[in-house]
Amino acid sequence: MPASKQQAPAQPVNLKAKASMIDQQWSPRVVAEMNDYQFKVVRIEGEFIWHSHPETDEAFLVLEGTLRIDLPAGCVWVQPGELFVVPQGVEHRTAAQGEAKLMMIEPRGVLNTGHEGGERTAQNDLWI
Amino acid sequence: MPASKQQAPAQPVNLKAKASMIDQQWSPRVVAEMNDYQFKVVRIEGEFIWHSHPETDEAFLVLEGTLRIDLPAGCVWVQPGELFVVPQGVEHRTAAQGEAKLMMIEPRGVLNTGHEGGERTAQNDLWI
Repeated sequence: MPASKQQAPAQPVNLKAKASMIDQQWSPRVVAEMNDYQFKVVRIEGEFIWHSHPETDEAFLVLEGTLRIDLPAGCVWVQPGELFVVPQGVEHRTAAQGEAKLMMIEPRGVLNTGHEGGERTAQNDLWI
Repeated sequence: MPASKQQAPAQPVNLKAKASMIDQQWSPRVVAEMNDYQFKVVRIEGEFIWHSHPETDEAFLVLEGTLRIDLPAGCVWVQPGELFVVPQGVEHRTAAQGEAKLMMIEPRGVLNTGHEGGERTAQNDLWI
């Protein structure tokens, strides 16, 4: 049966609450989609690996804690309520001292380790 | 003027602070781009007009206040830290009792009034 636009509307997503439900760090979970993009929440702590996404920019919104993004020219510190976009192809490494909760926005199918792969690559397209 | 992708590192964008700098309500301002998408902040109060975007979904993140989104099947209330995506082609009307500050995410070139046009159409691609 085709979905009707008269269905009860979907409900808003509380981003911090969703991030808090994830059972492990460094495991992004999809909470919503916009066209072919996905909104993902993730809990991080410590340092990730250096990687880049040759095909896309990647946006980070901090929900809780402080995100450090290491970039070729230095690092930026991103606080709750702040947005940072890592440009396509630019090497970067995310990190947090203590836990940080983030939202990431990127096209469907983008892997967390970009072109690097390896053991820190999380399963993709997991929803929460 | 938007930062060039060659400059690094750019600084994070404090969304609520940017929204607070806008000198009028219902006037979205671009704060960052991700590929061909734009992040816009806006201050709203009262009711907008019913419209839709036949070509794209549209994402709303509430920064401050409460956003009401009227939809064909009813309305949703979106609180700070919550995300809601209005699907492509679905008629909607944003509203707020008292001021609300929002971030919107949509492809570059999307007008605030969608297919409706009219006097509430804001100038597009203004940065802050």
